[in-house]
Formats: sequence, structure tokens, C-alpha cells
Amino acid sequence: MKTDASASWLPALSWARGYGLNDLRRDAIAAIVVAVMLIPQALGLALVAGVPAQAGLYAAMSGLTIYALFGSSRTLSVGPVAILSLMTAAALSRLSLETPAEYAAAALTLSFMTGAILLLAGLLRLGFVANFIPRPVLVSFVTASAMLIALSQMQLLFVVPVSGSNALDLFASLIANLPGAHLPTLALGLSAIVFLAVCRSRLARPLTRLGLHRVAAQSLSRTGPIVLAAVAIWLSWQFDLERAGVEVLGAVPSGLPSLTLPNFSPALLGSLFLSALPLAIVCYVESISIAQALAVRRRQTIEPNQELTGLGAANLVTSFSGGMPVAGGFSRSLVNFEAGAATPAAGFYAALIIALVMLFLTPVLYWLPKVCLAAVILVAVYALLDFSVLTKSWRHSRSDFCAVAITLAVTLSVGAEAGIGAGVLTAALMHLYKTSRPHVAVVGRVPGTEHFRNIKHYQVETSDNILSVRIDEALYFPNTRFLESLLFRLVAERPGLKHVVLMCPAVNDIDLSALETLENINDVLADSGISLHLSEVKAPIMKILEGTRFFTRLSGRTYLSQNQAFDDLR
Amino acid sequence: MKTDASASWLPALSWARGYGLNDLRRDAIAAIVVAVMLIPQALGLALVAGVPAQAGLYAAMSGLTIYALFGSSRTLSVGPVAILSLMTAAALSRLSLETPAEYAAAALTLSFMTGAILLLAGLLRLGFVANFIPRPVLVSFVTASAMLIALSQMQLLFVVPVSGSNALDLFASLIANLPGAHLPTLALGLSAIVFLAVCRSRLARPLTRLGLHRVAAQSLSRTGPIVLAAVAIWLSWQFDLERAGVEVLGAVPSGLPSLTLPNFSPALLGSLFLSALPLAIVCYVESISIAQALAVRRRQTIEPNQELTGLGAANLVTSFSGGMPVAGGFSRSLVNFEAGAATPAAGFYAALIIALVMLFLTPVLYWLPKVCLAAVILVAVYALLDFSVLTKSWRHSRSDFCAVAITLAVTLSVGAEAGIGAGVLTAALMHLYKTSRPHVAVVGRVPGTEHFRNIKHYQVETSDNILSVRIDEALYFPNTRFLESLLFRLVAERPGLKHVVLMCPAVNDIDLSALETLENINDVLADSGISLHLSEVKAPIMKILEGTRFFTRLSGRTYLSQNQAFDDLR
Repeated sequence: MKTDASASWLPALSWARGYGLNDLRRDAIAAIVVAVMLIPQALGLALVAGVPAQAGLYAAMSGLTIYALFGSSRTLSVGPVAILSLMTAAALSRLSLETPAEYAAAALTLSFMTGAILLLAGLLRLGFVANFIPRPVLVSFVTASAMLIALSQMQLLFVVPVSGSNALDLFASLIANLPGAHLPTLALGLSAIVFLAVCRSRLARPLTRLGLHRVAAQSLSRTGPIVLAAVAIWLSWQFDLERAGVEVLGAVPSGLPSLTLPNFSPALLGSLFLSALPLAIVCYVESISIAQALAVRRRQTIEPNQELTGLGAANLVTSFSGGMPVAGGFSRSLVNFEAGAATPAAGFYAALIIALVMLFLTPVLYWLPKVCLAAVILVAVYALLDFSVLTKSWRHSRSDFCAVAITLAVTLSVGAEAGIGAGVLTAALMHLYKTSRPHVAVVGRVPGTEHFRNIKHYQVETSDNILSVRIDEALYFPNTRFLESLLFRLVAERPGLKHVVLMCPAVNDIDLSALETLENINDVLADSGISLHLSEVKAPIMKILEGTRFFTRLSGRTYLSQNQAFDDLR
Repeated sequence: MKTDASASWLPALSWARGYGLNDLRRDAIAAIVVAVMLIPQALGLALVAGVPAQAGLYAAMSGLTIYALFGSSRTLSVGPVAILSLMTAAALSRLSLETPAEYAAAALTLSFMTGAILLLAGLLRLGFVANFIPRPVLVSFVTASAMLIALSQMQLLFVVPVSGSNALDLFASLIANLPGAHLPTLALGLSAIVFLAVCRSRLARPLTRLGLHRVAAQSLSRTGPIVLAAVAIWLSWQFDLERAGVEVLGAVPSGLPSLTLPNFSPALLGSLFLSALPLAIVCYVESISIAQALAVRRRQTIEPNQELTGLGAANLVTSFSGGMPVAGGFSRSLVNFEAGAATPAAGFYAALIIALVMLFLTPVLYWLPKVCLAAVILVAVYALLDFSVLTKSWRHSRSDFCAVAITLAVTLSVGAEAGIGAGVLTAALMHLYKTSRPHVAVVGRVPGTEHFRNIKHYQVETSDNILSVRIDEALYFPNTRFLESLLFRLVAERPGLKHVVLMCPAVNDIDLSALETLENINDVLADSGISLHLSEVKAPIMKILEGTRFFTRLSGRTYLSQNQAFDDLR
């Protein structure tokens, strides 16, 4: 749990200084595992986004390299991720783009704007914004997005057109077109899915039993996708599956990415801005959630604003190297972490491995069946599904459940951007609504103690001429009227009343609306010969009240403890 | 402070039963005062809204009558009000309406939709929505709207075109056109303003000194507008001011309103919906604020949902009787109250008086100079200006000030609807932001007591292996990360630590995000051999936690009091 004191604008300096041979060994192993896992994923995610396959690999290279320099997490693995690919496809499909080249250039523009927004947010120190997305909303959003991605992959699995703007439409179109499915492709795809699922969930344990170290066994079980790709390429080449109607990846340009310019036409920038903003938010929130979860395990810290800079720079650079929007990927970062990556250099080495593949192995990628990439994506997004958040939030509170359910429903029926927005809005409104009807208890003294408890639940001492009310909420605009009418009702029920004491140990704020309401309550009670008193007001609230004329107007007194008030007024 | 037990769907039944001669006398006097005040105001407000002058009087009649039957306030005076007239004009000017008849029909449609929305909200029991508009935002909104209305009246005062969509444009256009002002009209207008202002502010005291009862003197001082109107009509007729270029009201149709149908074209309904919604909100919030302020003074109660029904019915009926949108007017209701109105029948009598005027006095209204109506409106809206809310909110807190300033700025620069929306949004965001950085204190025991106070401000006992932290805020999504990083930082600064105690007397809520964060904190601390304990958790929060598996996971214990925790762990 030590803070990285030398974390500056270039966090790489803080770890590069003490870099040793042990670090190199650990990072290199992690890099191999990550690269092997990332290559098929990146190709598949490029297809999800609708850009050329090599864009996924270019984005992985630039994302890994640039984040290694500017990011604050030691283990976050940055590159194409499923949800950003989905959002990219949705954003670009709303534009009327004609050629694939235009489409790819627009993807670069989106990546550029996402990067620019993130960098600007970093400069403005807006890292705290991530706090406003509730965890259950994020989980629900990721689950719904994973379902949308899975539906989009059905196109490759069944080789039928699947179209629609929401989950139901996509599903209906899939069902309608199902009779036209290409059975050989489907068979290959299903075998691939079974193979990958077995690798992922059942391989690690037997390997450990065979004497392999746990980490090595887990790493090996993650090589499923690359083994699958190798076998599928061989089969595809050997039996010329392309002629049998199985779609293959086709020609992938060899070599490193050259400098490509995004399309900077003002019209495009304007129409993509509203897509880039949620993309930037999701990129940041997803990445920092993963980064923090991993950092906590090694007692490292994440600097939110540095994280914005790292992700912003990665997206900006990727937009000039023919890539697509990037973020920290969950399973990849976890694999990187578990394989023992010591520093972000691991990401740099992984980028090097991908570069070697781009230089020497692109010819064989030609034969890779697209359905195998779909299988890789399907198995990967399966891990993102978490429906337990529905039951968990239902058990916790109706307001958490509402936010979760609305996020899920809106993401599936309208889209990812609308879904996360609706979820956050629901959570915020639910909070305001809850605090508008605060918990308020009429209290009395537990005999023989100085404690005051709810008269409904405890046998307590009370006095006919004192009404003691404990307010369990900040007093602010949504609940001022509620408090006013509640107090007037309580007072009306008690004819002989002389004193009202508001017990405020849980009043964390008093805004101007509440202050004016308190003044009004005070005046109305005074007209009826009833004094208003306060007790156990917290120091910060006393400070607020002392800055106003409230105390000159207050008909009663302010007591340090409710017990003093009770003894004094009785 | 007695609740009206017989308040049913028709509140009129509750007061009509015991109606006596004394009530009749009081209501009749109040009705005369209100009618005399309302007639020139209603004519002027019709001009503000851009509808024919008689629409103001029709709206006053139906508003007063219907609200008397269905409203829950005994003294609220419902009719055309300045801010709704302003919002009506703004809404209708956005449509491209060609003839005055189309314009008037659209105003009826707006009134109909406002009424329908209010009735629906009443059925859905949405009366609590008014609570979400902070008082300072409302005051600031009314002030800015009054400025806009005043600017719009300059057109009649100077007889020059004043146009523009925001305050600055309106002002610039006034200045630019000033050289073309019609001096006789201006002179008449200024004299009228001075006369009205003197009546309003200086007449009551000398009249009281002359031996008049205070209430009678105040009522007399409110007759300024009608005296002005009478004198101006005589002058205008005697000297044929119309020929001298002074604009007069012109022909006002005589007699009672006949059944008129709003324009129900779907296109119009659709384009007016977004205007009707804020109109309904402002109508309700303004009316209920006035109604509650007056009810409190006489220990009566207002039933928010009944209020929605009363206002909704008034607007619905006015839309079928050639009127315009109506709400409770501030100064009119106050006059009604002070003149001694005992029951809503006062409103009904006032409507009768207006009906008599419509039947017999419309021919003389022909000669009424429009500038006198502008003077009436200007003096009336002057009373709505309250700039003290700026200094008051500045002294109270930056967040209140922000909400007030943004409401003022947006209302003036964009318009009334945007202004109130921006104000409420700012207040809500400010609250979320404030609670995202809660007040948290490391506490120790005040020697010789059971009280725990902030170690920064008090000489207290602490222990090297216990960290006691008091959290002064509900734990929910905006502040979970803040709490997590703060705790980890505090723990990192204290090497010998064994126990962390979270003291929760002011924790009013724990949502699912916060629960998961607490579980995570617990696990991380446990890994470092530190136990997490809770103390002084409130009953409702204990209930939430007991519904989860939190306590089976918690490494430490839950104490009823912080003192027990401290004694036990030391």
C-alpha cells in the first residue's frame, strides 16, 4: 500500500529506473501469454467494429506501447476491447458512409476524438467523473453489451445477414434467416466454441495435476485461441475451405502500420462528437475499474487523472496508425497480472511480438476462417455476462435494482450509449427521491442511559411537553417540504407541547432551501408558543448556521447533546 | 394546525356545509378588492401573452370559479399570472402562426395540455415533484422572468418594436429603437407608473393615520390600477388620445365567454407538448408555494395532489372558454388573504364581478390606453424582483449560489423553461458532487467521557493499533472510490495498525456500490492482517446489511457504541 511518489507526467520513469533482469524475465513471459491471447481477439474485434482486420492489430500495438509510457497502472493491458468495438460499429452505422475506406477513416476520427476528450479531461482533472457510475450499473451495462456483441457474431457463425438496431430486432432477424445457415461453417464454429470453452474452463486443473505450476497451467489454458487459429488455418489451407463456402480472413497487409490520417472534415467531427463522448467515458470507466481492482491486489495505486492521460494518448496515437478505439481489456489484463507482469514494459514486449507477426506471418492469416474469430469473441464475451447483479441488487434495494434493470433494458433496446446514460440518471434520481423522504424518528431516553432511541422500537422516557425528533438525512431541497409537513403534523397531534428538539447527529448538510424552511418552522411554532431547539449539530453544520442569522431568530437553544436538552427542558 | 379531514375529491364540500353570513361578508369584501385589482392585470397579461385582451378576463373568471370548487387552498387566487403569460408568448412565438386567431387557438391548446398534464400528475400523485425545485432557484427564476416581462413591456411604454430571444437582444433592440419613441405615450406611461408606485408603497400609511382600519387602508391602496384605468379612460375619451397616436385597447367583445374549442391538430399538440410540460411545472410550483405560505399562517393545510387537480381543472376549463393558461398569483392571493377571504367562495364572487364588467362595461374599455396596462404590469412584476437571493446564497454556500446564478443567467439568455431546468439540474449535480467528497474525520476519545471527536480539533486519546474514522455521509456510488482511497491512504500512514473502526452514526444509506466497496476494503485490509469493524450503525442500515452476506465476510465486529469498540480493541 505505498504511493508511487515519483509518478509524474511520464510514469514510465518511475519503474524504468530500477528495471532489473528479474523484471525482464517476468515481463517477457507475461508478454508472450498476452500477445498469443490478443492476436486472435484483436482480429475478431476489428470485424466486430467493421474495420479491416489489421486495424485491430495496429491498435493493439500502439495501445500497448503508448499506455506503457503514460499509464499509471502497472498491469493494465490496453488494446481493442469488445464494448468499444460494439460502440464504434453503432456510431459509424449511424453515418451514411459508402466505401470501406471511408468507414475505416471515420473509425480513426472516432478514436482521435475519444483520445482528445480523454486528454482534455485529464488536463481538467476530471478523473472523479468515473465515481458517478455505480458499479451495478456498470456490470449490467457490460452484460447487456456482451449480449449485443454475441448477437452480432451470429452473422459469422451462421453466415446469414443479422441486422437491427436493438437486441429484439437482431434476434428476430437471426431467427428469420436461420434456414439459410451455412452448415459447414456452423459446424466449424461450434467445434471451435466447444474447444475454446474446454480450454478455458477445464484445462488448467488437469495440467496442474500433471505437475505444472498453477500460473503456467493457467497461461497454457489461455493459448486455446492461438492453437485454434493455427489448426483452423492449416485445415482451411489443406482442404481449401474457402471454396467450400467458409469465409476466410483474406489478404492482410504485411508490415508495420504507416502514418495514417483520420478524416478531419468538420461535418464528421461534429456528427461523431456525441458518439465519442460516451466512448471516452466507457473507455475510462472500464479501464480504471480493472486497473484499480488489480492495483489493490499488489498494494499499488492508480492515479485517475494520469489514467486519463495514458488512455487519451493511446487513443490519439492509434488514430494516426490505422487502428481503432482502445481501452484496458478485462481478461487480458488479468492474464497479464497472473502471468506475473512486473512493469508496463510487458505491454511493450507484447507489442513487439505482434509486430513480428505483422512482419512475417500475415500470409498465413489469409486462410484463417472468420468463424473461428467469432468463436473467440463469443467465448470471451461470455465471461462478461453477469446476471447475478439482478438478484443481488434486488435483494439489496429497489433503487439499485431499478438502475440495474433500466441499464439492461435500455442497452438492449436502444443501445450502449443510451443504456449507460439511463442507468446513471436512474441511480441519481433514485438517490434524490430516497433522500426526499428521509428516515425520521421520534425519540426518547433509554432509562438509566444517555442514549435516545425510536419510541416505536424501545421502552423509553418521554415528556409531554417535549417532542424530540431525530432526522437521519441531510436537510436539502428535496426533503424540506417533507420535514415541514411532518413536523407540523407531529406538533398538531400533541396539544400540551412547549418544546420541539431536532436531534441532528446525522444531518450532514443544510442548504439554503432547508435553512429558510427551518426559519419558517421556527416562526410558525413560535406563534403557537412552542420553542424550537437543536441538539447534536455537527461542527461543519454549526459553521454553516453561524454564518447566517439563524441563531438570532431561533426561539430555543442549541444543545451539545440530546441528553442535556432533555434534562434542561423537562 | 388542524388537518381538513373532509377534504375529498371536491374540497368545496368541506367549507360549503358550514357557510355562514359572516363568511359571506368577509368573502364579498375580499372579492371586490381582488376583482378590482385583477381586471387591469388580466387585460395587461393577455397582451403579454399576445392573445386578445378579453382572453385574460375569461381566464380569470374560469380560473377563479373552477379552482374554488377543486383547489385545496382557501385563499389562492387563480387567474392569468405574469410568468405563465411570458412562457405562453415564448412557446407560441416558436411556432409559425399566421393569424391572431390561430395564435389565440394555439394558446387554448397550450392551456388544455397544461391542464391535462396537471390532472394526470394529480391522478399519479406526483405532487412531491415540486419538492425538487429548490426555493432559491425558484426565487431566482421568478426574478429573471420578471426582468424579461419588464423588457417586453417596453414595447408599449416607448411604442417602439422590441424583439429578440434573450434579455441582451431585447435590451439592445430597445436602445437601438429608442429615438423613435412616442413621447406623449411615454409621458402617460411614466405618470401611470409613478401613480401606481405611490399608491402601492406610500398610500396605506397616511390612510391608516386618517383613522382607516389597517386592512381597509391596504385594500384601498390596491385600487390604484382601477383608479388609474378609470382616469386614463376618461382622459383618452375626452382628448381623443387615439388620434394623438396613443394606442388604445380597442373593441373588447361584450358578454360572457362562449364555448370555444382549442386547436386539437396532432401536429400542434406534438409541438406544444415540450412547452406545456414546463408550463405545468411552473404553474404548480408557483401556486403551491404561495398556497402553502398562506395556509401556514392560518394553520390550514394544502394537499399537494388535490392542488394538482384544482389547477389542472382550472386550466382545462379555461381552454374551453377562450382563456389562457392560469395559476395562483402571488400579490392577488396575498390581497385576498389580507382582505379577509374566509373561503374559496371569495374567488367565485370575484368571478361574478368580472362577469358584470364583461356584460356592461366593455364599451368604455375601448378607450383604455395600452400603456396604462403596461404600467400596471411593470409595477406588479417589480414586486417579484428579489436580487437578495444572490447575496444570501453566496453567503450560504457556493453550491446554492451556483444554482441561483445559473438559473438567472440561463433564464435571461435562453428563456424561462431552460432557466428553471438548468437551475434544478445544477442543484442536483452540486448535491451529488458535494456528497462525492464527504466529510470524514479521524476521531479519538475526549478524556474522561464517552465522546469521540476529530483528532485535528480536540485533545483526544488514541491508540497506535486502532484507526477510528467517522464518516459524515451516506455511502453510495459517488463516494465509494473516495472512501476506498482515503482509507487505504490513512492505513498506509500507520504501520503498526491492527484495527480500523468505521464510526457510522451519520451514514444514512449504503447502496450496492458501497457495500461491494466495503467488502473489498475488508478483504484488502484482512490480507494485511488488519480487521475492519463498524460502530454506531443505525437501525435501518443494520437491516440493509443483515439482508446481505456482509457480516459473514467482515473480519472484525460491529459495536453499538464507538466507546465499546475503543475499550474492547485497545
